[in-house]
Amino acid sequence: MKREPPPVLTDDLTFQQYMGQRKLTIDKHLDHCLPPFDTPPEVIHQAMRYSVFPGGKRIRPILALTTGEALGGDFQKMISLAAALEMIHTYSLIHDDLPAMDDDDYRRGQPSTHKKFGEAIALLAGNGLLIQAFQLLAELPAQAAEMETKVGILDQICRAIGTTQGMLAGQVMDLVKKGKPFSAQQLEQIHSAKTGALIQASVCCAALLSGASAEACKKLGTFGRRIGLAFQIVDDILDSSQDSSKPPATYPALYGLEASSKMAIELVEKAIQDIEFLGSRGETLTELARFISVRRI
Amino acid sequence: MKREPPPVLTDDLTFQQYMGQRKLTIDKHLDHCLPPFDTPPEVIHQAMRYSVFPGGKRIRPILALTTGEALGGDFQKMISLAAALEMIHTYSLIHDDLPAMDDDDYRRGQPSTHKKFGEAIALLAGNGLLIQAFQLLAELPAQAAEMETKVGILDQICRAIGTTQGMLAGQVMDLVKKGKPFSAQQLEQIHSAKTGALIQASVCCAALLSGASAEACKKLGTFGRRIGLAFQIVDDILDSSQDSSKPPATYPALYGLEASSKMAIELVEKAIQDIEFLGSRGETLTELARFISVRRI
Repeated sequence: MKREPPPVLTDDLTFQQYMGQRKLTIDKHLDHCLPPFDTPPEVIHQAMRYSVFPGGKRIRPILALTTGEALGGDFQKMISLAAALEMIHTYSLIHDDLPAMDDDDYRRGQPSTHKKFGEAIALLAGNGLLIQAFQLLAELPAQAAEMETKVGILDQICRAIGTTQGMLAGQVMDLVKKGKPFSAQQLEQIHSAKTGALIQASVCCAALLSGASAEACKKLGTFGRRIGLAFQIVDDILDSSQDSSKPPATYPALYGLEASSKMAIELVEKAIQDIEFLGSRGETLTELARFISVRRI
Repeated sequence: MKREPPPVLTDDLTFQQYMGQRKLTIDKHLDHCLPPFDTPPEVIHQAMRYSVFPGGKRIRPILALTTGEALGGDFQKMISLAAALEMIHTYSLIHDDLPAMDDDDYRRGQPSTHKKFGEAIALLAGNGLLIQAFQLLAELPAQAAEMETKVGILDQICRAIGTTQGMLAGQVMDLVKKGKPFSAQQLEQIHSAKTGALIQASVCCAALLSGASAEACKKLGTFGRRIGLAFQIVDDILDSSQDSSKPPATYPALYGLEASSKMAIELVEKAIQDIEFLGSRGETLTELARFISVRRI
């Protein structure tokens, strides 16, 4: 399905409008890619859609779109990548909320998926979103010559969410460390794996898909790693009022609120230097990076 | 890593030896593909390996290898496909055994993964195996010209384990129907989705990877569909002694033991006709199909 790219950031468009229009386009594409509510067996497709919509900030898919815009990548490919990234993110949220994991009854102001559909359906809906994301990536529009890029993207995403350095590694380290002492190095490792890796992959895969040079991909990879870590530190800060008998490993717990906030800002400023090579093409990506360090939601 | 193919079925080798040698080769490759026990975070890799080894009959990966042998496919590719199929099968077993699903304390004579490692690690280990399988498929040795085949395989596997016609659809239908009346058509649909689809994909993907013609792939697909259904009917028969307050939808429950057994045998005989076009090259695949209908384990 051919989709119109939303307008780019200009003087006529505030950054908030820019974000809002991208969220709208991403949501439309997610709606198109997910099996309809009434596809049997209905309950799992209802649970998948319940978990994906209305959704949060859509940071990962927007990062992919904005990276693609900076590099002149094809919008039709970028929007498919974006939808896959958000499905993967949602799979991780559903599983994280399960009683065996964080046992959260609410997510984004509504009952979490297992509260609404039961644990079994929530578990399977998470799996369904993960598999649907892979299918979307396998079906990315590509010419024969670009098949290698497609396979490279699949490989990167598997690593970003896998058990050795990706999201699953982070989730396990987080579980193991809950309520126990942790070092600064361990904390950075947990955050980079749990949240940073998929955010970094959002940037890197969009760069790969835009046909960026190896050097540009490397610089954008460092940019992605830094803003990924900054994003999780800000998440920690925003969550820091929560009480817990088994406090998770967080930046505010180790460094305090003020120092953590400063670290996030410094990471983002360094990240912005990583993409100086983009010149004026990198302006929106720079704004997006800054938004990550100062956001209040 | 280059691996030696095990000897093919000849007069000097019994069928049992043939199966045993393939299981051995598959297990060696699984051992090679899974992160070692001591890769941090250790506990998830321990849980993944605990679930994969010693394993069961390895029917899906052996089907892939035997199909590849019949079609003259490259062994190095086939063994990677085989390992991915077994990882996907194991992911489904770990999640099926969870308390929220079938709540099984034992699997293949040892405590189930969540009994040994806790629910959270079991959940994540299942996800880890699924993602590792996709990574293995993305990394299948392939020339640029074969990239399309690779993407086709990924696509087929996503469908075979997805929410509309694949394994996840079957798991959901099974959950919804537990303890409720079901029709013959619904039962066939559940079984075909839950177990049949991945068994069918094991044959189809091996055929694709061997460069079989579209016509051969189609015939092998029908063969795979029939033996997949027969496999699950035999599973039902072997499980039929189990008591349950909420009886699952099974063939013995609907047709009785004798008629179910006859149906499995008939399905396999029809399946064998589907691959008559292979001539003598199809002999081992025929033996494997017969094994599925008469097995007692």
